[in-house]
Amino acid sequence: MRGLVLVAHGSRRAAANVEVAELARQVALQAGARYGVVTHGFLEMAEPSIPDAIQQAIDAGATEVVVVPYFLSAGRHVTEDIPRQVRRKQADCSAVRMTIAPYLGALATIPDLLLKLASGSLSCETEQRLA
Amino acid sequence: MRGLVLVAHGSRRAAANVEVAELARQVALQAGARYGVVTHGFLEMAEPSIPDAIQQAIDAGATEVVVVPYFLSAGRHVTEDIPRQVRRKQADCSAVRMTIAPYLGALATIPDLLLKLASGSLSCETEQRLA
Repeated sequence: MRGLVLVAHGSRRAAANVEVAELARQVALQAGARYGVVTHGFLEMAEPSIPDAIQQAIDAGATEVVVVPYFLSAGRHVTEDIPRQVRRKQADCSAVRMTIAPYLGALATIPDLLLKLASGSLSCETEQRLA
Repeated sequence: MRGLVLVAHGSRRAAANVEVAELARQVALQAGARYGVVTHGFLEMAEPSIPDAIQQAIDAGATEVVVVPYFLSAGRHVTEDIPRQVRRKQADCSAVRMTIAPYLGALATIPDLLLKLASGSLSCETEQRLA
């Protein structure tokens, strides 16, 4: 069974971490049969950690885990810190196949999404306009 | 003429700021006739500032400016800091209509994009797999 682990940076603001948990819930709802379990973890400043989030997926029965970095920039977190944590977990759990998906900001569609945001032509959860 | 101002947080890592400049260039390439000018600015830690990026768009002839926050989370930066800077600039330039688009993370399609990232079915600029 495949598991998806959404990984975010983690924030001192509890509300930002709750947003990530809610996003993981939305991903799970939309995953259908593709992923039997969806968990979320944080690189720092919040719990669960990335290894713990992977373990939650394994405990739920995942034999393949894909880690999806919810990051916009290919900074050290994306290129070094997340891979290091996943590799360490992989070394402990050799029976589970772990991969890291491209980070969100790597999507080739980002410029188009930004243009659609600018024109208000995409549905959004919130909108803000200057008063 | 309409201008689009892409706003990112700004990083101590020069490469991350260059990524934002490159993204703005891609947005400009794809904007076609919709936006006569596309600039980019940073909330902190890098130049140009948000007011300066708006001014660049105005100097290029923009009479309407839409600010697009390249942020994933509706934290204080998105809800307070960016609007405050744009409002202040708006007060100085009453002839130019300024609006703030929803931030990237507000897109209702984010869960679907994450699922597509996980399955490798969307084209990306970079990919990383565990060795």
